[in-house]
Amino acid sequence: MVKKVVIIGGGAAGPKTAAKLKREAPDILIEMYTDEQNISYSACGIPYYVEGIIQDVEELYVRSPEEFEHRGIRVFLGQRCIKILKEEKKVILQDVKTKEEKYVEYDILVLATGATPHVPHIENINNFENIYTLRKIEDGKALREVMLSSKKATIIGFGYIGIEMLEAFVKNGLFVNIIDRNKYLMGVFDEDISSRIQEHIVQKDGSKIRIYNLDEAIRFEGNNKKVEKIITKNGYEIETDFVLISAGIVPNTQIAVDCGLKTGIKNSVWVNSHMETSEEGIYAVGDCCEKRHIVTKKACWLPLGSTANREGRCAAINIANKNCDFEGVLGSAVSRYFDFTVAMAGLTEKQAKNLGYDTISAIVTKNDRAGYMPEAATICLKLIADANSHEIIGVQGIGTGDAEKRVATASIAIMEGVKAEDFMSIDLPYAPPYSTAIDPLLNAVQILMKKLDID
Amino acid sequence: MVKKVVIIGGGAAGPKTAAKLKREAPDILIEMYTDEQNISYSACGIPYYVEGIIQDVEELYVRSPEEFEHRGIRVFLGQRCIKILKEEKKVILQDVKTKEEKYVEYDILVLATGATPHVPHIENINNFENIYTLRKIEDGKALREVMLSSKKATIIGFGYIGIEMLEAFVKNGLFVNIIDRNKYLMGVFDEDISSRIQEHIVQKDGSKIRIYNLDEAIRFEGNNKKVEKIITKNGYEIETDFVLISAGIVPNTQIAVDCGLKTGIKNSVWVNSHMETSEEGIYAVGDCCEKRHIVTKKACWLPLGSTANREGRCAAINIANKNCDFEGVLGSAVSRYFDFTVAMAGLTEKQAKNLGYDTISAIVTKNDRAGYMPEAATICLKLIADANSHEIIGVQGIGTGDAEKRVATASIAIMEGVKAEDFMSIDLPYAPPYSTAIDPLLNAVQILMKKLDID
Repeated sequence: MVKKVVIIGGGAAGPKTAAKLKREAPDILIEMYTDEQNISYSACGIPYYVEGIIQDVEELYVRSPEEFEHRGIRVFLGQRCIKILKEEKKVILQDVKTKEEKYVEYDILVLATGATPHVPHIENINNFENIYTLRKIEDGKALREVMLSSKKATIIGFGYIGIEMLEAFVKNGLFVNIIDRNKYLMGVFDEDISSRIQEHIVQKDGSKIRIYNLDEAIRFEGNNKKVEKIITKNGYEIETDFVLISAGIVPNTQIAVDCGLKTGIKNSVWVNSHMETSEEGIYAVGDCCEKRHIVTKKACWLPLGSTANREGRCAAINIANKNCDFEGVLGSAVSRYFDFTVAMAGLTEKQAKNLGYDTISAIVTKNDRAGYMPEAATICLKLIADANSHEIIGVQGIGTGDAEKRVATASIAIMEGVKAEDFMSIDLPYAPPYSTAIDPLLNAVQILMKKLDID
Repeated sequence: MVKKVVIIGGGAAGPKTAAKLKREAPDILIEMYTDEQNISYSACGIPYYVEGIIQDVEELYVRSPEEFEHRGIRVFLGQRCIKILKEEKKVILQDVKTKEEKYVEYDILVLATGATPHVPHIENINNFENIYTLRKIEDGKALREVMLSSKKATIIGFGYIGIEMLEAFVKNGLFVNIIDRNKYLMGVFDEDISSRIQEHIVQKDGSKIRIYNLDEAIRFEGNNKKVEKIITKNGYEIETDFVLISAGIVPNTQIAVDCGLKTGIKNSVWVNSHMETSEEGIYAVGDCCEKRHIVTKKACWLPLGSTANREGRCAAINIANKNCDFEGVLGSAVSRYFDFTVAMAGLTEKQAKNLGYDTISAIVTKNDRAGYMPEAATICLKLIADANSHEIIGVQGIGTGDAEKRVATASIAIMEGVKAEDFMSIDLPYAPPYSTAIDPLLNAVQILMKKLDID
């Protein structure tokens, strides 16, 4: 019988596993170790703390260590797991300050070690102190501090963290340089959508932002450990007060790799649908583990906070000897630049083509609600279908109107494998303050049907 | 071969049929007749014209008669169809002003005659002029005029029109009496939800509104053709400057009944999945025809603007000799009282129980987005599942937060027959300004699963 569960990691997936497991099996001893000084916080909220929308960083904490302790979950801060001894069912934990090591036994081990920012190779990167990434609470505090005393920021790499920090920097009056490899910002979207995202950002705040597309930082220059200038591949010299690198993340899985757990994409930890790794009794949840894509049925690595929570819940149910299968992910994601939403679910068209799908797609630009309502605003939706099966396999939605609702709605249809022709039958709530009599999603479906010659 | 299609009715379904048919089969002669003085308008927008949000009534017109004529669709205003001669394939049309009659031949006839407000039997109802209903543009104009010169309004019956007109009257400074048969306002919802709707309305504007629940108007009294007092069944005497009756609608199907077309619920016109009536060559679309409920697979009559548009589209495709099956409706609907949304899809719990379902349900009250975001607001969601199949069969969502998104999202799940346990696998977009890491919908599903003992 399971007596003791040790959880490594205290971000989202670890605490979720602990809390759910305590409810499911109150008698199990649960210990949660993190190398950070805090646990159970909303990493997705950190950009809004930097921006100043959230005044007090405490608001980002979901539950305090004391709350966990009160529920009977033991919490250990500042303890880094440096080794898994899977034969002995022990882990070695190192105190991040004293470097003291200790052995901790487990019956079940849960890896929730998360991910770390990917830092590209740029000359002199290690010589300077004012180069930041954003992942943890402490990163947010440091970034807010430097932002408040700076005039010029440079963002290297531009995805979800990039767009959120751009909002923060612009809102706080900084001039922002963006260096990004892609043709357009938010290259995670298809180019016909990312071009519109960039267009909006430039139209709104072009005087406060300079974008270096299809470029890369190759060298930092400066004095007194401060970067002052960035040299790019295309030969630009960009002056800056500090640098934010937001060029993606990589899973934090060294200890898993070291002990021989099976790994997958980007060295993420392989798990089965019960969130159990290749080693019986070791589970992995959250950003450190590989995912299964619901559309392709193939492995992928799409690390997202909502997924982390659902995986933690699922692992806890299985550890408690009940049954939960994690179905996988759609890559549903959303962010914003002020009032401009960028959202997606399922496959992009370029992903789908790379995977060998024969795709068709439709783009519509429409009011999000009845045009005569004062709150009506524009959204642009892209729907992608498999030309052979007719199934909707991806959606992207952007705009100052309610694009996110359409992406959320379409995500269920993608999940259920709804075909374009059947999508026309969906019965969505309609009233002028909320939508149009024929929802923009259906306008997009109509175009798909025309292209499929089934209209 | 079809040469001439005659459409009776110019609200939403008729014009939609005409426009779609013209695109599908440009050579067909299309004539559209309406007894009104305008066509192709958004009836759902009329309350917002009364309220003053829409300044110009012209904004409600989707397309003008001239635009239809320009596309080659002939439009005849002020022509009431008084008889269908189905053997001769003719209709008799009467000019509403001159009463002149004429015969019009058709190859295909489309009935889009809509619905009419249901007016209950109340003593003296025919003796007064200041008793209004709201259905057509002219009704809206009259109601706006009387509202602007009044201090006290009384609304009899309280559904979607009721709640929208309450907003209009309160916004315009009137004191509003509401007489409604139900225990709580918005009796179309389950009582555990409608009680919360009424609670919100009372909390927000209790000093401007008096609600007479479980009551009925039985007599009007007044002078000079003006109602001044309403006597209720419970013995109240309510002073008022005018009366709005919003006690539901009935399908407008006298001509269909007269010519022997098969009818269904409330005398709505029976149609097959092609929108064709029991008489070959006669179609019916929009509020005048019966619907099929997607959950129950049974006939129902849920007249809604979004349905009307989709039915019109479907009929047009079939008339053009292509194939379109109308799947049916979910009863998806939404409205609001200022910033407070009320939305539903699928079956209510009481409907489901009346139909013999063994139901379970879950209610959650949650923030609609991360609690630390300033725009976070409360929503209350109710999910209803079939206790035997575990399928989600209904959703209701209310609140100042984004309840409508959750209802739209769940409506796809209801449509697809998603089970509670599978609903937990849905992957919705998450970011703090849009949602919570575990969406309130999923919190509700968790409760369902507990009740089903499958968690």
